[in-house]
Amino acid sequence: MTDPAVRTADRIILGIDPGTNTMGYGILGVYGKKPQMIAMGLIELSKIGDHYMRLARIYERVRMLVEQYCPDELAIEAPFFGKNVQSMLKLGRAQGVAMAAALSREVPITEYEPRKIKQAITGNGAASKEQVCEMLVRMLGIDRDSLLPKLDATDALAAALCHFYESQRPAIAKGPKSWKDYIARNPDKVTGL
Amino acid sequence: MTDPAVRTADRIILGIDPGTNTMGYGILGVYGKKPQMIAMGLIELSKIGDHYMRLARIYERVRMLVEQYCPDELAIEAPFFGKNVQSMLKLGRAQGVAMAAALSREVPITEYEPRKIKQAITGNGAASKEQVCEMLVRMLGIDRDSLLPKLDATDALAAALCHFYESQRPAIAKGPKSWKDYIARNPDKVTGL
Repeated sequence: MTDPAVRTADRIILGIDPGTNTMGYGILGVYGKKPQMIAMGLIELSKIGDHYMRLARIYERVRMLVEQYCPDELAIEAPFFGKNVQSMLKLGRAQGVAMAAALSREVPITEYEPRKIKQAITGNGAASKEQVCEMLVRMLGIDRDSLLPKLDATDALAAALCHFYESQRPAIAKGPKSWKDYIARNPDKVTGL
Repeated sequence: MTDPAVRTADRIILGIDPGTNTMGYGILGVYGKKPQMIAMGLIELSKIGDHYMRLARIYERVRMLVEQYCPDELAIEAPFFGKNVQSMLKLGRAQGVAMAAALSREVPITEYEPRKIKQAITGNGAASKEQVCEMLVRMLGIDRDSLLPKLDATDALAAALCHFYESQRPAIAKGPKSWKDYIARNPDKVTGL
């Protein structure tokens, strides 16, 4: 029994923000060229005392999301720098179990740094959570009041939307690499010397 | 079709040494109180260029080992300190996908620091790979020549054997925590004052 919003979508992107205390997720449906939020949520892990039970919960939850929404892609918020090696090892494990759940169903993964996500959504890599949230409200037409209690899950939805923008961006928009490249791309602009 | 050595074992311990370049594994069967090696091997990951493909390979391989040998427990070699946050994040991911494969089948996990494993096997926490290997040959009656080409997988087998020793160790062997604890454990040693 798949959600009707999932059946009619051209493409489903699952966004995940895996942490050791909470895990956020967002499901983005793409209809034509229009992205729309299908679901988002937060899994509280801090009450689970056992480290392995937390990892098991992340794995199970991501596996369930993959079963339920059949995503075509997984976009993951992945900080590359942390406070210390201990916290990075724990974060790596949380990311690893979430990735395993996607990889077991051959869902391709793309990871984005938090800064990159903020940049893609708001145009400012140092934007606040509230600014990101405000842009999600505008871009996806979500009701602001329904989003506020799930503020910590917005990063996951933002990761999915960032992935959508990145995949829409034509390669040419990155600009020519050099004058040689520019000339090759624009032969009509070359005049005789 | 389960291996006869697996069917007759009272207990199966899967030892894993997950890394980002290679993954070693060792299967230890316990017959009565006697541990015996059932299998060991090494998965070469360095030739797989894509990071996610490596993680997928680790996940699949551990999942296959769990299916094939039905381990009762997973013992994992897990260094808690690394060179830098980058390498620890990658190591955490490798550990995470291996753990996910075990957790998905509810196989309980115990992790051991490399130093702890060396200590348990050789009595010296700073023992060399060769010394650990020599002790495995003696304790498990393995043919030395068959072990040499798989030298990098010995850490995984050592993790499984370390877990076996730890589980055999009676709680009392850890010694009394305090005089109060000692008196509680040895009431006959208390004389009137």
